[in-house]
Amino acid sequence: MGAAIALAQRGVGRTAPNPSVGCVIVRDGRVVGRGWTQAGGRPHAEAMALAMAGAAARGATAYVTLEPCAHVSARGPACADLLIAAGVARVVAAVGDPDPRTDGAGLASLAAAGIAVTAGVRAAEAEGPMAGFLSRLRRARPFITLKLAVSLDGSVALASGESQWITGPRARAHAHLERARADMILVGRGTLGADNPRLDVRLAGLEDRSPLMAVMSATDTGRPGMRHLANPAALAAVADADFVLAEGGAGLAASLVAADFVDRLLLYRAPILLGGRPALNAIGLPDLASAHGRWTPAPTIDLGADRLETYFRTR
Amino acid sequence: MGAAIALAQRGVGRTAPNPSVGCVIVRDGRVVGRGWTQAGGRPHAEAMALAMAGAAARGATAYVTLEPCAHVSARGPACADLLIAAGVARVVAAVGDPDPRTDGAGLASLAAAGIAVTAGVRAAEAEGPMAGFLSRLRRARPFITLKLAVSLDGSVALASGESQWITGPRARAHAHLERARADMILVGRGTLGADNPRLDVRLAGLEDRSPLMAVMSATDTGRPGMRHLANPAALAAVADADFVLAEGGAGLAASLVAADFVDRLLLYRAPILLGGRPALNAIGLPDLASAHGRWTPAPTIDLGADRLETYFRTR
Repeated sequence: MGAAIALAQRGVGRTAPNPSVGCVIVRDGRVVGRGWTQAGGRPHAEAMALAMAGAAARGATAYVTLEPCAHVSARGPACADLLIAAGVARVVAAVGDPDPRTDGAGLASLAAAGIAVTAGVRAAEAEGPMAGFLSRLRRARPFITLKLAVSLDGSVALASGESQWITGPRARAHAHLERARADMILVGRGTLGADNPRLDVRLAGLEDRSPLMAVMSATDTGRPGMRHLANPAALAAVADADFVLAEGGAGLAASLVAADFVDRLLLYRAPILLGGRPALNAIGLPDLASAHGRWTPAPTIDLGADRLETYFRTR
Repeated sequence: MGAAIALAQRGVGRTAPNPSVGCVIVRDGRVVGRGWTQAGGRPHAEAMALAMAGAAARGATAYVTLEPCAHVSARGPACADLLIAAGVARVVAAVGDPDPRTDGAGLASLAAAGIAVTAGVRAAEAEGPMAGFLSRLRRARPFITLKLAVSLDGSVALASGESQWITGPRARAHAHLERARADMILVGRGTLGADNPRLDVRLAGLEDRSPLMAVMSATDTGRPGMRHLANPAALAAVADADFVLAEGGAGLAASLVAADFVDRLLLYRAPILLGGRPALNAIGLPDLASAHGRWTPAPTIDLGADRLETYFRTR
């Protein structure tokens, strides 16, 4: 299952509105098939892994990070049917599929066909690559990461507005990797106007990963290809992006934090003092006590002289 | 010498205007004497260690973090004379004493008495506990630590001014330990007025370590026991404090950073977002590039949910 989860990571940012799933097929202790959801959401991970395994799938065990789908669509067959037809002996799944078209029906049809079924294996871990898909089904909005590049004192720019560059090349390259793993980049109205950012992925070999672009603005900015979201609540209507990367500025960041819409916080921190513009506008806290306990740290990464701190919303 | 440096740490914040020195006397592979500069600066480390060693000092080796003093004062004898009288065979010193009354004369008088002398051993490390003393002699000002307790976004208070508490009890206790190791606490005029802080050491057993108190203010605050410094340059006239701990607010912090007077930066960071008052006012940077390279990180310490980051001015 660990290998299947690692495979699922490959599709993150490319499969929306489908979840990024991984699948490993094992027969007699050997891996005979590996697959992950392809760009655009099809083929599914199981179809890829079964195609690789061919006849070796007969009698094998399939490890899959999400319950195989039970519904035939115009875009492809149901994975449960494919697994049955291939003659696998056992299916181990991590997360149950909350899509109402499956929601247990995939595992049920496998079991009805005489396949041994185990579910719930390493589910929490497996949810990572499909967190956006699950968020849309469970909370009716995408999974939102807020990224801020700050000085030690929390500034994102000098008073003059100068903000290039706070962090160094390694941190900036990592931030582009985060863009490649997002379905949509979201910026604030002020940032779009001041910096006119390109909002694309500028990493060799990953240029085609550039995500959808959106701005938090009630009025049309006139920028081609740009979506316009009037406020955080408008994210509920975003059906084609599972992972949204919000890149600031301070007003957008504050509106997302105030709405409790930030699931993951990325702080790229440079070892400098600026005394400039703050990263975060007021978020409407009634008192200091209510600020505590909301963020759980994940391991820190050194990126040259800079450091990336990651925090997840405390569940 | 490592043991002597560790002993020297004990006097930090208590010996000004004298340096905190450590001394270990070893004879036939056994430690026969240990000493460190006592509160108020006397007796010196060597006098303490020699008193403990007694007759065992004859033929022994004395390890001392600073060149033994050559000058007799009204407050005590010259340590070089004490070492000669005790009959030590060898003296190993870390740092040469830049005090013009010694400045090589201590080691010279030991050598003239037939004692084997080695100097410069682990000097950079040994400078730590006497950094304030050395700073006053070399740069005509104390060693200055700037301490800030901040949220992840660099706020030190809510917009309302509420600032109790950003960090938890372990971080606050550590900050009081830092007070105990300072000779003087310095706050800004606004902080003194808004918070009316006690500026003492509230750790069991260390209450007597409470340092001198000063405020950066051109006008008298009328507060008893408070010194008044009109601006950072006035720190040059502080002759009785080797280590100054500046505790904010944002105006004081900015004036010290702008003057390039901060030798050590302590960031107590809580895993919270506030969107409140910034830790640092404008510091007059001409551009972003000039902010880089000024700070060198030291290891980070976890203090409960909070984290202490330490940075030293890049030499």
